Amino acid sequence: MNSDNNIFTVILSCPDRIGLVAKISQFFYQREMNITDLDEHVDKENKMFFIRLEIDRSGAKNKNFKKDFDNLALSVNANWTMKKNSEKVKLAVFVSKQVHCLHEILWLTKIGELNADIKVIISNHEDLRKIAEEYEIPFYHLAVNEQNKIEQENAQLRILKDNKVEGIVLARYMQILSSKFVKKFENKIINIHHSFLPAFKGADPYRKAFERGVKLIGATSHFVTESLDDGPIIEQEVTRITHKDSLFSLKRKGKDLERKVLARAVYLFAENKILSYENKTIIFD
Amino acid sequence: MNSDNNIFTVILSCPDRIGLVAKISQFFYQREMNITDLDEHVDKENKMFFIRLEIDRSGAKNKNFKKDFDNLALSVNANWTMKKNSEKVKLAVFVSKQVHCLHEILWLTKIGELNADIKVIISNHEDLRKIAEEYEIPFYHLAVNEQNKIEQENAQLRILKDNKVEGIVLARYMQILSSKFVKKFENKIINIHHSFLPAFKGADPYRKAFERGVKLIGATSHFVTESLDDGPIIEQEVTRITHKDSLFSLKRKGKDLERKVLARAVYLFAENKILSYENKTIIFD
Amino acid sequence: MNSDNNIFTVILSCPDRIGLVAKISQFFYQREMNITDLDEHVDKENKMFFIRLEIDRSGAKNKNFKKDFDNLALSVNANWTMKKNSEKVKLAVFVSKQVHCLHEILWLTKIGELNADIKVIISNHEDLRKIAEEYEIPFYHLAVNEQNKIEQENAQLRILKDNKVEGIVLARYMQILSSKFVKKFENKIINIHHSFLPAFKGADPYRKAFERGVKLIGATSHFVTESLDDGPIIEQEVTRITHKDSLFSLKRKGKDLERKVLARAVYLFAENKILSYENKTIIFD
Amino acid sequence: MNSDNNIFTVILSCPDRIGLVAKISQFFYQREMNITDLDEHVDKENKMFFIRLEIDRSGAKNKNFKKDFDNLALSVNANWTMKKNSEKVKLAVFVSKQVHCLHEILWLTKIGELNADIKVIISNHEDLRKIAEEYEIPFYHLAVNEQNKIEQENAQLRILKDNKVEGIVLARYMQILSSKFVKKFENKIINIHHSFLPAFKGADPYRKAFERGVKLIGATSHFVTESLDDGPIIEQEVTRITHKDSLFSLKRKGKDLERKVLARAVYLFAENKILSYENKTIIFD
Repeated sequence: MNSDNNIFTVILSCPDRIGLVAKISQFFYQREMNITDLDEHVDKENKMFFIRLEIDRSGAKNKNFKKDFDNLALSVNANWTMKKNSEKVKLAVFVSKQVHCLHEILWLTKIGELNADIKVIISNHEDLRKIAEEYEIPFYHLAVNEQNKIEQENAQLRILKDNKVEGIVLARYMQILSSKFVKKFENKIINIHHSFLPAFKGADPYRKAFERGVKLIGATSHFVTESLDDGPIIEQEVTRITHKDSLFSLKRKGKDLERKVLARAVYLFAENKILSYENKTIIFD
Repeated sequence: MNSDNNIFTVILSCPDRIGLVAKISQFFYQREMNITDLDEHVDKENKMFFIRLEIDRSGAKNKNFKKDFDNLALSVNANWTMKKNSEKVKLAVFVSKQVHCLHEILWLTKIGELNADIKVIISNHEDLRKIAEEYEIPFYHLAVNEQNKIEQENAQLRILKDNKVEGIVLARYMQILSSKFVKKFENKIINIHHSFLPAFKGADPYRKAFERGVKLIGATSHFVTESLDDGPIIEQEVTRITHKDSLFSLKRKGKDLERKVLARAVYLFAENKILSYENKTIIFD
Repeated sequence: MNSDNNIFTVILSCPDRIGLVAKISQFFYQREMNITDLDEHVDKENKMFFIRLEIDRSGAKNKNFKKDFDNLALSVNANWTMKKNSEKVKLAVFVSKQVHCLHEILWLTKIGELNADIKVIISNHEDLRKIAEEYEIPFYHLAVNEQNKIEQENAQLRILKDNKVEGIVLARYMQILSSKFVKKFENKIINIHHSFLPAFKGADPYRKAFERGVKLIGATSHFVTESLDDGPIIEQEVTRITHKDSLFSLKRKGKDLERKVLARAVYLFAENKILSYENKTIIFD
Repeated sequence: MNSDNNIFTVILSCPDRIGLVAKISQFFYQREMNITDLDEHVDKENKMFFIRLEIDRSGAKNKNFKKDFDNLALSVNANWTMKKNSEKVKLAVFVSKQVHCLHEILWLTKIGELNADIKVIISNHEDLRKIAEEYEIPFYHLAVNEQNKIEQENAQLRILKDNKVEGIVLARYMQILSSKFVKKFENKIINIHHSFLPAFKGADPYRKAFERGVKLIGATSHFVTESLDDGPIIEQEVTRITHKDSLFSLKRKGKDLERKVLARAVYLFAENKILSYENKTIIFD
């Protein structure tokens, strides 16, 4: 949400070893670039090093550094990504019939709360075309069934490619994506599951929660992996219910939770604050 | 926590039908007993009626009503219990080696926050004898193994009977009670499980939570049934963790949660505010 | 949110005395009306009795009871109101320039989450006319200044009267209403204040919170009285902030809180679940 | 809580400028000391730089670095402190009559949850001598009144000096400390106030909260400054109350909150995770 082209964010992970912070911070200092924010984490069990830096290069004489930084990264066996803060992340939203999550994302994007650009909405139903039109986002209806699944996924992938989509939000999309699809967008597909995972995986979690008699219901946003509802968790939250709550009122409370938790995950994604490692996330916040 | 013998609580459940509140409130009005608190719930799905009343009979000419009330209850097919608020509930606490939950219950009882009388502490280990002595509560060490389980449970039951124990608190007791034992204390054994049930049932839930990468950890207090970790839930709460939390710090946070959630369940039990029905609880609070 | 004309809610308050529940429940039982929900509270300090009943009169032979009930109410010195659950409450929303609270209320009303009918939007600025038009709600721009305040309030009152408005939502309306205006809508004007009242009353609470270095920020919805920010509190909630939050990010978090807390208050109002007494609210939920 | 003498924590603050992270991390890298944890914050408004580092010097050939680091600090105009993680912080606890906060601190210290050594308990009343004895902590009864205040503070200061006390916990101590006393322990005296500050400053906050009709009550731990209840806030939390809560039950809930919030603040202090700046705290957690 910054219009300044000189501010950017670097996220890097590599095996831990002595001197990493020194090496990295020295790199930017030598180039007269200022570290305006730094968040570091060492996973002592797995001996892994993770860092997020926000850099201001407005004072730098030479603003190019990518090749040099890549050499540094190679030398410590690191993965890294870089993103200008002024650039909006290009998103696709996949939906079915329920509107509340889609609407929250559209609205927050419209008023500038999410540093994102919603390029397309893709759905297996026609129901939500109208809201897409209201927000002036292209809407693609691709009905999916067992027979045409591969074909429709290919169509989806073409749309995503044409729109240079960088991340996908499953806003209560009721279809399971194929392994092939998921692999193309590893750690880039954000789902919202309407339970406190790993409790109540799969279908109809609210009914299961109601029948179990829990005192709190939850929502979980996570990256999608091949294994349903098992991907790295980005954000979770709960809300209190009582014996007075019917299944209907429980769902009502749950919907508010879902849209909040999904919006928070999309926010973190758009701000480049998530790093995944070994089926967990590091949230630099 | 009231020294007045005229204040008492009635809890009643029966199939729902028209006129129940009228019938019950009329009953006490006719006897010049004042309803100082009333909480009612109708489970519309199961067509069941639940009510908790707090009654002040200080103005009544004739303070006996039990037989008459039993007739009323019979006429509507109701279960009911009655308890003077001034009477402390007699509890046994079962423990193994961990002290934090036991200590919380002992301490809150000592300072009068729990309307309870801890009659005995029973353990399969010697470790916590000292704290029992400090609080001047009889401590019984009954080591349980596969061979002597039935025998030791019989010994436990004798101790409970001798002490007229009305409720059992499993304060991180690491043994599974037999069906026979559980049936004798149906909806009277309160357990604390160190996860947000039904997630992470069984052993070592904190490690499971850590490995799954959840963003919130929980604790659940529930009545013990024959099926492990599946009984009616009384209270649940969660606390936030992040990627910075090691398994060690996660457990540290969890222990604070466990003692809080267990204490809350014991409080509700001692105040006669819990009614169980179909593997759920109604909390009149 | 019930289309059944036979379900209605009664709220009643009166000085406490023995036999009130019996009297009231008897009244409906005699008329073959079923109490499907009952919530009662006695303020022991002030010796006041409060009750909310949900009644199903579908089985009653004679569905008229208002006159009789009024006689009952008179006999115990009670105030009472009655509302069919199927009837939507007619609301006006007052706004200035900020959109987030208005949008939340409009959206939740549109999708049926609020049992309300937004009749008009009134603003002292033109800014939000477009969203009013999108939701097809009449928008009145009545610019208020020191000179025309009385005149403009009269214009507002006429609009409210013409639309039979039953409740007013101040969705970040930045004008203070006159005593005369407030008295006409006693306990019917819901405001959202962007702090945890009574902390940070008055202008710019987020800046004050930021400068004080609080670790939680809050939002408070309350009925408007003559005394600014001092009316009966309906709902409050907080969210955690840290030293990393700038004033900007604090406001971002705050806006999410505001719309949630205001929506909750409007929900309770529309469901007839609020009773005010002595500058406090009883929330029958 | 680490027995390893080679792990230590450095906290440093100075005016922000380019290259600080590089300079500091380089310093430890050159000495073959490993940064195992790093948390940095830049206050952009005040152009201030704050950093906390956890260092492992077990691999270093020369473990002395204090003089050199002091030179570095001087060169960037920094304040800094250093603490071995294995060293327990020496605390005094000041109390009056209420036991719950004292008990929580004693208990958590005893079981090793707080990296602290409680050297003395000082009170203006005799009431809590017994619990001090149970925990085998020296107890000093210094009754304070208007006449002897200066004299008694001098006695307190002598006790603190004799015991090399590094931090003071006011566990519901009902006396106001003099400016002179406070200045000697700047940012080293932790108080618990039983409200969500800045709401309900001063005496009897629970009564004020009850009378105001708030829906959440809070507790606040803060460093003590000359100005009552206005020092830098370390931690705050809230809990929900309803119209059903009497002043008595509100206080019961509040006490649980107070001891939790105070224990959290003492934990952060003992782990060297708090840095104060301009009446705010930076919590490195």
